[in-house]
Amino acid sequence: MIHFESDYLEGAHPKILERLVETNMDKTEGYGEDPYCASARDKIRKACDCPNAAIYFLVGGTQTNSTVIKALLRSFEGVMDAPSGHISCHEAGAIEAGGHKVFPLPSVDGKISGEEVDKFMKAFLADGNRDHMVRPGMVYISQPTEYGTLYTKKELEELSKVCRAHKIPLFMDGARLGYGLAASCNDVTLPDIARLCDIFYIGGTKVGALFGEALVMPDPDLIPDFFPMIKQMGASLAKGRLLGIQFETLFTDDLYFKISKHAIEMADKLEQGLKDKGYKFYINSPTNQKFIIVDNGKLEELGKSIFYEYVEAYDDGHTVIRFCTSWATAEEDLDKLLALL
Amino acid sequence: MIHFESDYLEGAHPKILERLVETNMDKTEGYGEDPYCASARDKIRKACDCPNAAIYFLVGGTQTNSTVIKALLRSFEGVMDAPSGHISCHEAGAIEAGGHKVFPLPSVDGKISGEEVDKFMKAFLADGNRDHMVRPGMVYISQPTEYGTLYTKKELEELSKVCRAHKIPLFMDGARLGYGLAASCNDVTLPDIARLCDIFYIGGTKVGALFGEALVMPDPDLIPDFFPMIKQMGASLAKGRLLGIQFETLFTDDLYFKISKHAIEMADKLEQGLKDKGYKFYINSPTNQKFIIVDNGKLEELGKSIFYEYVEAYDDGHTVIRFCTSWATAEEDLDKLLALL
Amino acid sequence: MIHFESDYLEGAHPKILERLVETNMDKTEGYGEDPYCASARDKIRKACDCPNAAIYFLVGGTQTNSTVIKALLRSFEGVMDAPSGHISCHEAGAIEAGGHKVFPLPSVDGKISGEEVDKFMKAFLADGNRDHMVRPGMVYISQPTEYGTLYTKKELEELSKVCRAHKIPLFMDGARLGYGLAASCNDVTLPDIARLCDIFYIGGTKVGALFGEALVMPDPDLIPDFFPMIKQMGASLAKGRLLGIQFETLFTDDLYFKISKHAIEMADKLEQGLKDKGYKFYINSPTNQKFIIVDNGKLEELGKSIFYEYVEAYDDGHTVIRFCTSWATAEEDLDKLLALL
Amino acid sequence: MIHFESDYLEGAHPKILERLVETNMDKTEGYGEDPYCASARDKIRKACDCPNAAIYFLVGGTQTNSTVIKALLRSFEGVMDAPSGHISCHEAGAIEAGGHKVFPLPSVDGKISGEEVDKFMKAFLADGNRDHMVRPGMVYISQPTEYGTLYTKKELEELSKVCRAHKIPLFMDGARLGYGLAASCNDVTLPDIARLCDIFYIGGTKVGALFGEALVMPDPDLIPDFFPMIKQMGASLAKGRLLGIQFETLFTDDLYFKISKHAIEMADKLEQGLKDKGYKFYINSPTNQKFIIVDNGKLEELGKSIFYEYVEAYDDGHTVIRFCTSWATAEEDLDKLLALL
Repeated sequence: MIHFESDYLEGAHPKILERLVETNMDKTEGYGEDPYCASARDKIRKACDCPNAAIYFLVGGTQTNSTVIKALLRSFEGVMDAPSGHISCHEAGAIEAGGHKVFPLPSVDGKISGEEVDKFMKAFLADGNRDHMVRPGMVYISQPTEYGTLYTKKELEELSKVCRAHKIPLFMDGARLGYGLAASCNDVTLPDIARLCDIFYIGGTKVGALFGEALVMPDPDLIPDFFPMIKQMGASLAKGRLLGIQFETLFTDDLYFKISKHAIEMADKLEQGLKDKGYKFYINSPTNQKFIIVDNGKLEELGKSIFYEYVEAYDDGHTVIRFCTSWATAEEDLDKLLALL
Repeated sequence: MIHFESDYLEGAHPKILERLVETNMDKTEGYGEDPYCASARDKIRKACDCPNAAIYFLVGGTQTNSTVIKALLRSFEGVMDAPSGHISCHEAGAIEAGGHKVFPLPSVDGKISGEEVDKFMKAFLADGNRDHMVRPGMVYISQPTEYGTLYTKKELEELSKVCRAHKIPLFMDGARLGYGLAASCNDVTLPDIARLCDIFYIGGTKVGALFGEALVMPDPDLIPDFFPMIKQMGASLAKGRLLGIQFETLFTDDLYFKISKHAIEMADKLEQGLKDKGYKFYINSPTNQKFIIVDNGKLEELGKSIFYEYVEAYDDGHTVIRFCTSWATAEEDLDKLLALL
Repeated sequence: MIHFESDYLEGAHPKILERLVETNMDKTEGYGEDPYCASARDKIRKACDCPNAAIYFLVGGTQTNSTVIKALLRSFEGVMDAPSGHISCHEAGAIEAGGHKVFPLPSVDGKISGEEVDKFMKAFLADGNRDHMVRPGMVYISQPTEYGTLYTKKELEELSKVCRAHKIPLFMDGARLGYGLAASCNDVTLPDIARLCDIFYIGGTKVGALFGEALVMPDPDLIPDFFPMIKQMGASLAKGRLLGIQFETLFTDDLYFKISKHAIEMADKLEQGLKDKGYKFYINSPTNQKFIIVDNGKLEELGKSIFYEYVEAYDDGHTVIRFCTSWATAEEDLDKLLALL
Repeated sequence: MIHFESDYLEGAHPKILERLVETNMDKTEGYGEDPYCASARDKIRKACDCPNAAIYFLVGGTQTNSTVIKALLRSFEGVMDAPSGHISCHEAGAIEAGGHKVFPLPSVDGKISGEEVDKFMKAFLADGNRDHMVRPGMVYISQPTEYGTLYTKKELEELSKVCRAHKIPLFMDGARLGYGLAASCNDVTLPDIARLCDIFYIGGTKVGALFGEALVMPDPDLIPDFFPMIKQMGASLAKGRLLGIQFETLFTDDLYFKISKHAIEMADKLEQGLKDKGYKFYINSPTNQKFIIVDNGKLEELGKSIFYEYVEAYDDGHTVIRFCTSWATAEEDLDKLLALL
């Protein structure tokens, strides 16, 4: 059996394990107050060209999303996103459990536009009944999206402009950010993101770490007293240095970018192979997730030797499935996959 | 100026005020434990042909909706409704504040069907990712809907059948139930509702009372220990008898049905008048709310003498507005309205 | 049987019913946007000597407490009160359901002091672990307290001073405020309260109204966008004018103060009668609630002809009970009670 | 500088790191569906003599506490604990954020008794006002407690008996359970706990793991559909096997018990050393935490070379501090500490 169903199949990049082993018996303060976290923060601030940013390390994506959204919204406000957004459909209702409505806006390829946000805000403001409605209070986007697509710099600039015009924060879920930054067609840099978003995170879980997300607030005053909120949500780690060590390693010698690049090279090769073999793509993704439409008969056969991710029924005879590459994808496994397809 | 913008413009039916005055200096226990509430419960049980029903009196609709939904759902469950459902858009996020997602299903004229509920449930059950999703755990409908339309008995039977097949409760918001029961085309009775729904309420606020909703649970064990939940939500009234007295009066000598009938007669006359004058209807409503499409120029003129409810822009030159009749509509006011239109 | 168990046994002061009857068929906008509410606000602003105050009318006390506290606290903050505070023990956990801890401070006769608040705040600030703790973020007091006792002006000034020094709001629950203002020993006026508290309410339910609490925010900017929060909590009334009419009536010709005075005169007479008959007081209350310690044998006998409120077991042979007078207490009933005791 | 301030200063036991390295490039399914988790569950079931137990692995203690308590309580219920309980004071209000009150019961040395629980339950049941109160719905205890003390088997049996009589679950927080099991005076085994508690967890974070708590439900039906609740709280790990690998290692060849025993040996030596030097103990703890009362002058001096945990001011001239040993304590460090004291 060969595995291409997700990008969190393995443990961590060996350098990270090495550092965990090396530092294992060091004695440090807990909850992110250790020197490894401090050093990781410095390196991330530099990578983002954002010297004053506040940086927090949280354990996982669902936690980070629900903690940030709860911290930013007032009780009668909701968050706008794409219908395919992670908070809309893969977090078991964590946002609503925190008290907030998720507004799925019209989207294209998993992306929402500044124009749609503006339209939604204006419709809300024009509604005579608005005091009886949930106020749209922030925007959540994923980069890359859940469909592997990317916002261009121009699209982000428009979203950012609209959000600032309406005085609502723009929050980017970067669970797979490395794979977005490394994509051939990408024109967005970390400093761009830090300039255009009000808060975002750099994903570790899917990009080389055992777990962990580095949350960046370019303006450290965006959420005062953030730590007790993180603690209340159970999103901080007692041995916080485990997060610091991982991110310090990822942001040393461009490791984060190099391993992301590898995943993209594998993904590009996978895409070319799929095209060569005549597979039909469900969506055009430039990052590490590839969505294809497969005949159900063929799929049954593939299922005997390949783990893939079921996405949805396409029609009576076809299914949409996903393959993922990652920092850990071995080229020989990819070759085997292509041979099997 | 003439008022037809809503159905809660006036106080209460004079018989209710009379009873409030008569009983004013009686001394009774609070929180619904008084003889008026007991008597009102008996009368409602009879009207519903449901001798074992548990009946609670709550102050308003938003409270009732959020209290019932919070009581029925588990933390990771959500409620299905129509996109135009009151809980979807007119309660400032009360359901989400209680921790639950609202799933707007495809709807026609403000109504959802058993078929759509079944489809949504089956899609959820078929999704390999369902443990990471909000589970659809109940159905909310309004009778009449927010668009004044009605579920037929057959439609309710289908919804009920699907809900029971999936073991999820069917909840009916009857804020305007009287106007539905009195509509000429209606084929649904209170006993039908008690048989087909798991929980529903008979609206007082919009149908003759100062305020108040009578919540009926045909199976009294549906929600054990419901009182402390009502209390926690602030939905009980210290002087609970005020609710009992109002519903006792409404359910004596068929007052609730008679005054609802009046509203429908006025609504029918309004509809005929609008048709005669060539107004175009936005939706075909058989109850006390009439939705018409008006030219914006005409609307500006009407606005000088008539209060109407703005619903939404229809196109660049037209607007959807609503007129309501109620138990309190005077025929002479209606004649004036028709003359002005 | 004779009733002295609570102060919400009857309906409303006859003048209020009269006004409800007179205005019954007026047509007004809903949710507090009517002229009666506007007029009631003006009269209350004058009574509080607080021309810029924002004033909201809510239906009941539990709702008002939970809506205000949720609006004022951040997610990791809690509210300090007396252990006997209504929010601590009579609201079925409404404050916790809104996400917040209630900190019961040491109290004397149901009252907390500026000194205790200051001590608690300082202990919190000194705790090295404070980022892992709930931050005390506001103070809740009742005037009169649940034991019928009163804060003196000096005590309120100290509480206010401490709260302002720590930048936390002081919130007064005035469910029985009229009876406090009318007490012989009281030295606190409505303008004092408006000057010393950041937010407070003037109770209607227990002081002459059918229901309703008038919430006063001397600084209207204390809670921006408060209406959608009220709506979300289900604490607003569709026919909001019912609240406006009641408070307008209560604040016309000093009705609120006159009827409160009557309750106190009855309470003073009750207290004197109890003393004359040798009853032992559990607490010294100058307002409309009297707490006495009764021998259990005697109590059983009294229970045959008098409704009283059980408070708690005092010891094996004695019980603490409460009698209440109110705006509605008839002197002849009081004489009967005293004869029976 | 020498560190004895907490028991989570280091990483993980070397065997755990070794296993993480060995298994690093294995490809496994996420969210606890991997073979390591399956194997760890089997080993824990055996250690607990509880073949049908459901076992879940969560990341940290605060999450585990808030997820379990939210899952077990109904909306109007609260949880009883000791005032020093972790949920009472070290989780930034996570329980209240989940909607529930924490009832601190009278306690001795950080422990509550079956008798106190019974008394509290009976007082609640006897209160005529109980429908307006939070219902005590479960019991939370820590073993060892936050003061390092232990429940005896007899004490646990009594708690269990009372809880079962009142039909409320007994939940044990075992964040430091290993150190309790290894204490010389301990007479409670894992099978005892599985027999007497309805749900409990075996702590990894403080006992050899990088992080992680193994939650054991002897009756797997106690909480149906638990996974989506864990997911909603963000308490599951995408790479769930990291938890499985750690607990599998800890429960192979009694590693969990052996390393706990080491911590206790170090703690016993520390206690003897402190006694020999005449230090006064604040509380008598048989586990890995030692609480002593130190003169403030002395403390300032110690602070130059030793990291300790400040607990609280004892009096004007003295302070209570805590030293911890752990699985990782080196005897030479302990000797240095004793030399410095």
